[in-house]
Amino acid sequence: MLRSRPLRAVLLALLPCLSAHAAEGLWTFDRPPVEALGKQYGFAPDAAWLAALQGAAVNFGASASFVSPDGLALTNHHVVLGCASRLATPEKDIVAKGFVARSREEELRCPGGEASVLTGIEDVTARIRAAEDNAKDEAGQASARRAAITAIEQECQQAAGATGQCRVVSLYQGAVWNLYRSDRYDDVRLVFAPEYQAGFYGGDPDNFVYPRFALDVGLVRLYRDGKPVRPAHWLHIDPAGPKPGEPLFVAGHPGATQRLMTEAQLRELRDVQNPLALAGAQRRIDVVLAYGKRSPEAERQSKDELFGLQNWYKSLSGAQAALSKTGFLERKAAQESDLRARAAGKVKGDPWADISAVVARQSARAKLDWVSDFRGPNLLARAGTLVQWAHETRLPEAERLPEFRQASLPRTQARLLADSPAYRELDRVLLLDRLAEARELLGAGHPFVKAFEGEGAAALEQAIAGTKLDQAAERRRLIEAGPDAIDASNDPMLVLARRLEPFVRESRHFAEDQVAGPIGRAAARIEQARYAAYGSSVAPDATGTLRFSYGEVKGYASAGVAHPWKTTIGGLFDRAASFDEVAPFNVTPSWRKARTTLNPDTPFNYVLTADIVGGNSGSPIVNRAGDLVGLIFDGNPASLGNYYQYAEDTERAVAVHPAAILEALDKVYQAGSLVRELQSPKR
Amino acid sequence: MLRSRPLRAVLLALLPCLSAHAAEGLWTFDRPPVEALGKQYGFAPDAAWLAALQGAAVNFGASASFVSPDGLALTNHHVVLGCASRLATPEKDIVAKGFVARSREEELRCPGGEASVLTGIEDVTARIRAAEDNAKDEAGQASARRAAITAIEQECQQAAGATGQCRVVSLYQGAVWNLYRSDRYDDVRLVFAPEYQAGFYGGDPDNFVYPRFALDVGLVRLYRDGKPVRPAHWLHIDPAGPKPGEPLFVAGHPGATQRLMTEAQLRELRDVQNPLALAGAQRRIDVVLAYGKRSPEAERQSKDELFGLQNWYKSLSGAQAALSKTGFLERKAAQESDLRARAAGKVKGDPWADISAVVARQSARAKLDWVSDFRGPNLLARAGTLVQWAHETRLPEAERLPEFRQASLPRTQARLLADSPAYRELDRVLLLDRLAEARELLGAGHPFVKAFEGEGAAALEQAIAGTKLDQAAERRRLIEAGPDAIDASNDPMLVLARRLEPFVRESRHFAEDQVAGPIGRAAARIEQARYAAYGSSVAPDATGTLRFSYGEVKGYASAGVAHPWKTTIGGLFDRAASFDEVAPFNVTPSWRKARTTLNPDTPFNYVLTADIVGGNSGSPIVNRAGDLVGLIFDGNPASLGNYYQYAEDTERAVAVHPAAILEALDKVYQAGSLVRELQSPKR
Repeated sequence: MLRSRPLRAVLLALLPCLSAHAAEGLWTFDRPPVEALGKQYGFAPDAAWLAALQGAAVNFGASASFVSPDGLALTNHHVVLGCASRLATPEKDIVAKGFVARSREEELRCPGGEASVLTGIEDVTARIRAAEDNAKDEAGQASARRAAITAIEQECQQAAGATGQCRVVSLYQGAVWNLYRSDRYDDVRLVFAPEYQAGFYGGDPDNFVYPRFALDVGLVRLYRDGKPVRPAHWLHIDPAGPKPGEPLFVAGHPGATQRLMTEAQLRELRDVQNPLALAGAQRRIDVVLAYGKRSPEAERQSKDELFGLQNWYKSLSGAQAALSKTGFLERKAAQESDLRARAAGKVKGDPWADISAVVARQSARAKLDWVSDFRGPNLLARAGTLVQWAHETRLPEAERLPEFRQASLPRTQARLLADSPAYRELDRVLLLDRLAEARELLGAGHPFVKAFEGEGAAALEQAIAGTKLDQAAERRRLIEAGPDAIDASNDPMLVLARRLEPFVRESRHFAEDQVAGPIGRAAARIEQARYAAYGSSVAPDATGTLRFSYGEVKGYASAGVAHPWKTTIGGLFDRAASFDEVAPFNVTPSWRKARTTLNPDTPFNYVLTADIVGGNSGSPIVNRAGDLVGLIFDGNPASLGNYYQYAEDTERAVAVHPAAILEALDKVYQAGSLVRELQSPKR
Repeated sequence: MLRSRPLRAVLLALLPCLSAHAAEGLWTFDRPPVEALGKQYGFAPDAAWLAALQGAAVNFGASASFVSPDGLALTNHHVVLGCASRLATPEKDIVAKGFVARSREEELRCPGGEASVLTGIEDVTARIRAAEDNAKDEAGQASARRAAITAIEQECQQAAGATGQCRVVSLYQGAVWNLYRSDRYDDVRLVFAPEYQAGFYGGDPDNFVYPRFALDVGLVRLYRDGKPVRPAHWLHIDPAGPKPGEPLFVAGHPGATQRLMTEAQLRELRDVQNPLALAGAQRRIDVVLAYGKRSPEAERQSKDELFGLQNWYKSLSGAQAALSKTGFLERKAAQESDLRARAAGKVKGDPWADISAVVARQSARAKLDWVSDFRGPNLLARAGTLVQWAHETRLPEAERLPEFRQASLPRTQARLLADSPAYRELDRVLLLDRLAEARELLGAGHPFVKAFEGEGAAALEQAIAGTKLDQAAERRRLIEAGPDAIDASNDPMLVLARRLEPFVRESRHFAEDQVAGPIGRAAARIEQARYAAYGSSVAPDATGTLRFSYGEVKGYASAGVAHPWKTTIGGLFDRAASFDEVAPFNVTPSWRKARTTLNPDTPFNYVLTADIVGGNSGSPIVNRAGDLVGLIFDGNPASLGNYYQYAEDTERAVAVHPAAILEALDKVYQAGSLVRELQSPKR
């Protein structure tokens, strides 16, 4: 599924030279490919059309969209799964059994839930360049740039108030800087989630696969001041869905692509970074799978974590497969040679060599950077964030890590204080594995390993058993008591996190100052050269901001099998019976019960050629009329190559058909009021 | 589909060194792998069990089996398609509309239809070796062997009478010689064929593909003396079908494998023979497709020919893909090196080098051999057979081409005289293309091309327009008038065939005397060396005789998609709706009409791991009880590699489930009497 999980490479994504293909490009809303669309489809969306889509698009970690005048937002089941997991209990397992709020009162607030809607884009490149130009050397430039970004964000934030959110984002790795203004919502309530088995039908075997039969659909409602939001724009659902040949448009938040990287960077990803990540993901999957086998309750606790890990692993494997394909790097190298020949004498220095030098430094400490990370085990992640909080909030704004700058601090705090469960025993096995991994990668004598071990195995066990950071109230108390109180606390998990924090900080600063910085400056020179050489326009790499892409429904063949552009509800029952109703291909009791009332020919899932990557999960698909005709939730196997190159002929985005959403809500989930709300009269 | 179409390589299939895999092996019925079966499944079929299966297995070009005490035989729709095509007329198009005989009287005799049942296998190796040993040189040995074979066949034939059939077959390319005795039936009547679209659901895109939803089922009844045959053995149908994990057994007539070839032979196939055949098949497909577009009647006329060509092309492409896989030939070479090292000093001469020398000669004239073939255009094939008839029947028995020896003459005559239609205009375009191909491959000045052209374009047109060989009566008249009359005839197609005949004869003799002969003798030495080195037992390559294989039902994954072991009738309607009912994925009116009465969960098609290749079409699948639990009709894409190596983990045979056969006959085709006959009480 198209969940965005930060690959290590996200921070370093870079520039040039791919010719623009049919539906290629994850475009920003201020520079959509209207000319290409006009040429290909005779339809060039105007400003009002684009504003309506942008205004309905919701950033909800992944993607979502408003689908009613009362703030109802449509996204994927796997996107609301985190919220449902935090709300589920052994007694009321809404993950396994699903959830339908039959009235506003029954809607459940997601712990730590937050969403935002992009309200404006402003080009601030000139102001940042001007600040840089006043500095004398590279270090001064970096510092001046950070200061300028902070100033822009703070000015904007003051004007925007508490519900506004301002972020300066870099596109084309620093060639372009934009200020993104959003409306922020921190009251998100769960309205509908199907049973895990219906939402994730086919499970890991069917993930990133097509044909599919998944109701990967979730509904949330955004609230502000205790009232449902009345969005300026929302999408009317057209149950007829898409027609073959018509242009379809996608708005979503693709997380990260690396299409503009140099050959040296891609080679390093393939040979160093990706193998580390794949091995790491695999060992975590093994640990969580083994844990889940202990008991049904352990399985319940581990479900969300396992899904995330397997999804990450499969996505990374597919991407690595594309990167490892015979000839792929050779083609990249040839394109690069061509550009370098054309740019000879016109570009300052040798930016390709500059990047290669950075990549070499990066490779040298790749293993240490891989293990220096607080994420993963829940309690360590919380302790780590608290330790960083104490350290970072004492620094001047411009020197802080991004998530501790003023603009991001409320979000970081909300996440830290969210009242979501931590499973001590699951954390324990993950933490022990993390130590084992570090020992294997770095050797037992490495300072990081020593710091991790502290006073030995008993101390680690004690960190898990004795910490109080599982309680939101304790975390709140520490935040409110301030940095000194955090530093003084002898909570054993905080003690562990304090020993690891210098390594994590060093790794973060290395990535930001010694990798992203110099690569960005070199890449900006490459991009100028590329424009000079080819003059063509390419979309920036994805960075998690709102993007616009397009395509059309189209079947395809793979391994000799012809895949139709859509599947039907009847196919769900065929697939289940074909697998003798064995999990993960079994049909849930609710669907089984509704079978005779369902029209088997109702379109269920479908594929389209739109350019998508992880983070596009939950993206609305609209037609020329601006009506919602689909909900993206996955990509086919070839789409995993999109991280490095849009796989024009073979990649497909996988979507839920609107007719299936309405049919299931009506007949399987008896959610008549939601069906009526989803069919609100168009304005 | 698993129709056997002679690849050029069929004549030359050869020996050694593959380790035996799980379900690998197309075993003869006199040497079944009972030990391996006992070990793997705790079930070693005894002689009576094997005799019952052998006695029920029918050779019908491809494969079939008796399924009732009244001589009803079950095979594939695509196996009875040739018969149906010959019986169809524009007014009564039983190919498009299907056919059900609702009483014995309505059953339609297939023109040229013939079938046989294997009644005995006798080892005659010693007698042939003894004859060879009396000869002084290689030429003498070949001649002595031919004389011995002829004598054995004639003795047998005299004892067997008119309904018996005796053939000496070579296994392991001449290391083993067996006499195969069969009962022959020349009155085969069509009982049931579904509509082409239902039998060949999914058409060429779904051919050699899985999942499938095809009722690739046909029924014929064998008659003798005007009465239905009462077979000694017939298979009871078990509608429950197979269970996962249980051993399943297959009896059929796989056409040809090349698993025991040397690396040099396989390389020549890959680089010379297969490319020629692929290009030839492609151009014939183009010609027939273009012809079919002229009118609905032209499309009807070309359907069977087109199916055969596309099936051949796809099969050959898949085989070539397996052969071209990175490392395949390298592995073969490594196996060969190992064997040669072990055999050093123990084998007479260098049989591998001997074979390589033959292969080089074969390559040198590959293009000429490719075009020197009467098959293809119907009228030319008939004229060619008549010209050969005149020539060959004058020769002493042992010098004749195999199909003109006494034992085979009745069959050759029956085929020649079958009252099946020839479409003059379709023949014309095929013949012109054949000439164009020869010109391209050999050059305009080549004697074969000159002979083909004769007195120019007008003469060719006249050969098509003026021949009377489309009439069975004329062909009969010529046969009865004898060789001199045939030679004297100035039928213009006979005139053309006479000009080409020397080339065809030379090509046939080259293949038989200068390729198969010496390769067989060298291969026999290799096989002895292999036994000495490894001592293990491998099955002989397939040669179209009755074989026994086994396996179990098992799903598989390909290109990331998990395929279940079976599909259901509900899946047919899903696939049709998913493709918007566009051909070849549309559901026929008969199925559409019956939809609500059909149980959608009825198993439709399924896959099993049994070793199969082209020619296994129509093979019965039986369980331990000897009951029929499936009907093989196809293989998945990986199974096409079986020609060169049993693709253990990935290959699957594709079968029709017995429940679907009964459900469709009952509810779609209202063939109650057939359903009752198929459920005849077990004896």
